[in-house]
Amino acid sequence: MSFSPLIRQLIDALRILPGVGQKTAQRTALHLLERNRSGALRLAEALEQAMQGVGYCERCRSLSEQPICNLCLDPRRDDNLLCVVEGPLDVQAVEQSGYRGRYFVLRGHLSPLDGLGPESIGIPELLERLEKGAFSELILATNPTVEGEATAHYIAQLLIQKDLLISRIAHGVPLGGELELIDGSTLSHALAGRKPLNPLD
Amino acid sequence: MSFSPLIRQLIDALRILPGVGQKTAQRTALHLLERNRSGALRLAEALEQAMQGVGYCERCRSLSEQPICNLCLDPRRDDNLLCVVEGPLDVQAVEQSGYRGRYFVLRGHLSPLDGLGPESIGIPELLERLEKGAFSELILATNPTVEGEATAHYIAQLLIQKDLLISRIAHGVPLGGELELIDGSTLSHALAGRKPLNPLD
Repeated sequence: MSFSPLIRQLIDALRILPGVGQKTAQRTALHLLERNRSGALRLAEALEQAMQGVGYCERCRSLSEQPICNLCLDPRRDDNLLCVVEGPLDVQAVEQSGYRGRYFVLRGHLSPLDGLGPESIGIPELLERLEKGAFSELILATNPTVEGEATAHYIAQLLIQKDLLISRIAHGVPLGGELELIDGSTLSHALAGRKPLNPLD
Repeated sequence: MSFSPLIRQLIDALRILPGVGQKTAQRTALHLLERNRSGALRLAEALEQAMQGVGYCERCRSLSEQPICNLCLDPRRDDNLLCVVEGPLDVQAVEQSGYRGRYFVLRGHLSPLDGLGPESIGIPELLERLEKGAFSELILATNPTVEGEATAHYIAQLLIQKDLLISRIAHGVPLGGELELIDGSTLSHALAGRKPLNPLD
């Protein structure tokens, strides 16, 4: 026995989810059919509404339902700071740090082998955003990976002539880790970036 | 910044999928929005069609789009054998063994602590099916777990008076495994079920 056409179609469709292979798709499809049909219908509706209703903020390029997102509209944020990240989830992460400036969201990082050049990831839009704003500092918060570093350096070089402080987030040992588990490159960054410790502070 | 309402709704809806927690739901939602909107819309449609179009076969209780499933309608199958399994995926598994009789699909196994008694898992329908058919053997292929064994024994006891051969699938060492990795109970089943080996066969 093979599955009936509608179940097969559902299994195929579920495979677009990241990390879902054939077996997981089968189990998920039958789980939904047997245990949670109302949840599955809600999911179908949520998918459709989100795909049709969510676009990109014209200013920061993050996902947004309005032309300009709430974060860009918020008048209490610092208009001097612009933080560049690789994706919308990174905005969430940086927010948790207490940062309260503006953002610009790239569409990933430079990756020439995958055909992703400056235009594909939104560098022209970033330059445009810098023209329109009056920022005093640009914080490059791309991922601490080879591609993220390369993207940060590329942007820094592009803007070298501008009257703008360009900074990169610090590399070092993450809080809560154990030194013996940390790789050599991270540790050499941590040593090079060492700071005087004043016990009276 | 928190996510916009439609994205939040999508993240919540994705959490009904088995094994998907908050973080995975967030990543999945943003992945679909940024990388695969057409796939997400296809998934929405497939979910809706399957949830509305797939019901249960009146005869074997497996998932089916027609009142009677293809497997029950197939005239080439052996009408003497009825194999009882816990779910539709088990039908697929038993099919791979080359079995070509009929099936009856329970809705899981007996689990009194979860309030799943004989009625909830479809034992009355199984008895009805046995009345209507002319089976000579009932093969209990519930899972080799404590609950699956209990369910098999419960069914066997119910039918003890009937003129029907009742069998349970064999327990033993699975093919391809290594003996040192197999647990003691399985091995004791394998020893108790040992068979004479005729080198001339």
